[in-house]
Amino acid sequence: MADLKRFGAEFLGTLLLVFFGVGSAIAARKEGGVVVVALSFGFILLALSYMLGPISGCHVNPAVTLGALATGRISVGGAIGYWISQFVGAIVAALLLWVLVHSGGVTDQSGTLGANEYGAHINLGGTFLLEIVLTFLLVLVILTVTSRVEQSSVAAVAIGIAIAACHLVGVALDGTSVNPARSFGPAIFAGDTPLSQLWVFIVAPLIGGLLAAAVLRFVLGNAWRPQAAGAPGPDASR
Amino acid sequence: MADLKRFGAEFLGTLLLVFFGVGSAIAARKEGGVVVVALSFGFILLALSYMLGPISGCHVNPAVTLGALATGRISVGGAIGYWISQFVGAIVAALLLWVLVHSGGVTDQSGTLGANEYGAHINLGGTFLLEIVLTFLLVLVILTVTSRVEQSSVAAVAIGIAIAACHLVGVALDGTSVNPARSFGPAIFAGDTPLSQLWVFIVAPLIGGLLAAAVLRFVLGNAWRPQAAGAPGPDASR
Amino acid sequence: MADLKRFGAEFLGTLLLVFFGVGSAIAARKEGGVVVVALSFGFILLALSYMLGPISGCHVNPAVTLGALATGRISVGGAIGYWISQFVGAIVAALLLWVLVHSGGVTDQSGTLGANEYGAHINLGGTFLLEIVLTFLLVLVILTVTSRVEQSSVAAVAIGIAIAACHLVGVALDGTSVNPARSFGPAIFAGDTPLSQLWVFIVAPLIGGLLAAAVLRFVLGNAWRPQAAGAPGPDASR
Amino acid sequence: MADLKRFGAEFLGTLLLVFFGVGSAIAARKEGGVVVVALSFGFILLALSYMLGPISGCHVNPAVTLGALATGRISVGGAIGYWISQFVGAIVAALLLWVLVHSGGVTDQSGTLGANEYGAHINLGGTFLLEIVLTFLLVLVILTVTSRVEQSSVAAVAIGIAIAACHLVGVALDGTSVNPARSFGPAIFAGDTPLSQLWVFIVAPLIGGLLAAAVLRFVLGNAWRPQAAGAPGPDASR
Repeated sequence: MADLKRFGAEFLGTLLLVFFGVGSAIAARKEGGVVVVALSFGFILLALSYMLGPISGCHVNPAVTLGALATGRISVGGAIGYWISQFVGAIVAALLLWVLVHSGGVTDQSGTLGANEYGAHINLGGTFLLEIVLTFLLVLVILTVTSRVEQSSVAAVAIGIAIAACHLVGVALDGTSVNPARSFGPAIFAGDTPLSQLWVFIVAPLIGGLLAAAVLRFVLGNAWRPQAAGAPGPDASR
Repeated sequence: MADLKRFGAEFLGTLLLVFFGVGSAIAARKEGGVVVVALSFGFILLALSYMLGPISGCHVNPAVTLGALATGRISVGGAIGYWISQFVGAIVAALLLWVLVHSGGVTDQSGTLGANEYGAHINLGGTFLLEIVLTFLLVLVILTVTSRVEQSSVAAVAIGIAIAACHLVGVALDGTSVNPARSFGPAIFAGDTPLSQLWVFIVAPLIGGLLAAAVLRFVLGNAWRPQAAGAPGPDASR
Repeated sequence: MADLKRFGAEFLGTLLLVFFGVGSAIAARKEGGVVVVALSFGFILLALSYMLGPISGCHVNPAVTLGALATGRISVGGAIGYWISQFVGAIVAALLLWVLVHSGGVTDQSGTLGANEYGAHINLGGTFLLEIVLTFLLVLVILTVTSRVEQSSVAAVAIGIAIAACHLVGVALDGTSVNPARSFGPAIFAGDTPLSQLWVFIVAPLIGGLLAAAVLRFVLGNAWRPQAAGAPGPDASR
Repeated sequence: MADLKRFGAEFLGTLLLVFFGVGSAIAARKEGGVVVVALSFGFILLALSYMLGPISGCHVNPAVTLGALATGRISVGGAIGYWISQFVGAIVAALLLWVLVHSGGVTDQSGTLGANEYGAHINLGGTFLLEIVLTFLLVLVILTVTSRVEQSSVAAVAIGIAIAACHLVGVALDGTSVNPARSFGPAIFAGDTPLSQLWVFIVAPLIGGLLAAAVLRFVLGNAWRPQAAGAPGPDASR
């Protein structure tokens, strides 16, 4: 039962992250530019981290769950449940956005249902390097701040602001993934190039997440302890 | 007496929310785009939540009050008082904005006194879907974070940032309502299309608020307890 | 001695508020629009409130000091010292900006050293109404959040975000004053229209500040108590 | 060992600060303007301050380390280790950005790998004045908020927001340094004008940092005490 509630929170959280973040790219990418998309991803993740942090830790991102697994903060079974919930949530969000575009009268300003894509402003190698560095920062922020009881009331701010920073750098280049589920949902509806490039936006963020876990364990110190009630972070209910 | 103070706070809060949020659309929608309006709604609600949270809970939104009612956090009589205060506050704000435009020399960059409207970039069905999802997120964030004592000092940040996220997605499509009172005030002065479409911006947000209450009760758990002093949130004085 | 330190803090704070806020209008108004100026005023006041709050309360605004005086939070002698410090700080800031423009090679994108001015997008009556409402909100936020011990660590966020909201509405209309000292410094260097209109940007914000004090005393309740150490707010050392 | 961990944190932090801050200028300066760069520097420093504050104090800036040295918060040996770590981190970040531009297919929207440069919009004297004032504010905010235990959970917000304010004023003029290491990395790859002007962006920020230390010691009061666990700030582990 407790697991079902946590999986439900990850499903709902990833659904809302993708709907709001990718939705802003569809609705306002041309009018508002990079800032709109960056703030939308940052603000929704900040709000979700406060809302769902005490329930599931608010990973809402397979790369975060992998980092939590690699630092011993979630079980293998829990991680698999999280991953399934996240991908299903992202697919439902992309479906809702697809309905808005195809039946709701919304013009898709991103042209690809907000899917990630490289080629125009960055090549394959550049995308790999970029996504690894961006995801490394995001996951390292999450794994450090959520392991400190004294930061429990503000960890959500650090996390939301960190993903906004990732998007300020990456939106103009490849749209910014840093989250395999966020890339998966729109890509399966967009098809074509986004679908054929999808593997990059799954593999590179996962490498970035593992790198963050390694730096935490071997350099900064993996000071994991059960968190204070109300703290967002990996697997809070464990 | 305590009720009068709470109703006064809801009146004043809704007045200021509409004046600042809608006012930014009138003053700077063309120059500053989606970001100006989104940040204005987000920043004013954040400030109001800190200011009025400990007094009335700072609903300033009939959909939030409905969510609070459906989760047992406010009485029917209290909710009716809140609703009246909110609609009157929104009307006074719209009147002030109307005076600025018609006697104050301000050119209305929104063209409709900042009223919500669909048709150009989204159709009726799309508006319904959009407003339900956006309001669902907003009310769910409010109902969860305000029920946790340990988040009392930061709940206002989560709430303000959440409504900014709603606007980053919705401003370019229908202007973003997520609040029947916010739509009501400007529409009665704008007349025409905004007035004829007003029912959508009343019904859809209320459905979103009810949906949030249902998810809280049946999925995430409605862990309501009297809040810490100083916390924003539904009916703090109850 | 304690007074000299507090006056020094008000001088330094107003100097930095005007240098950063008005400086962003000079450096980037045309390129970055309303958002740059609004965020600059909001961010610098947030930082200053954390920095100087525990020392002087970080009024850095004669209208705030008037509101504090009208609610019994500062003595008449203290208020006069604050006002002198604030105006002198604003003049020095304007002098530094004048040097940047006239010897530093900086092109003034505002055209008037960032001085407030009405006429193009709003008339005299509109300016009066606008500045009263904007300053009313700002001073009311400051007077409420700084009187609550439980909000002492976050009051600076509410205050900075509130002044940013004021600018999101007002920058495109009259540049936004809400602070007589902020208007005074640039106007005496700009001369011409800004200087002849200066009285409006002194009188209207002061009325807004008094109105906030009245609402606090007679509606919301003036629950003033000595603050926790570290809290920004009116006259913390009193 | 403890020193190595702190130096590693300063290396990693400066690397990420430069990669994200300067990276946003390379990727989106033309599309997103001043706001993108200002928010990117502000958001990444906020996240880094939460992440690395409890480990090294998260200086990630030689001018901050100089201010900490001048106020007795770090030893000479510690400061030298911090400075070396910061400059090496900035060089590695610039190398990564150089790879993105020269092999990764990224077009450099800044034209100089995001290096600081004056001449077009501000002259030498103006740059000196500007960088001194901006760095003065940044270092003064850092030195004050990190010395107050009661602000330990929010100091990172004040610091990140303060550097964003610096960039809102300075990006359009000289790109904003306020950090010798941030200027050093890109300049050695850009060569030409940025390299020949590099000394200004090293000397002026250091003067600003010293000035902040002086104001703290002789005006505001250098109330330094060992910080609460979890607080960002100069040399937390001392």
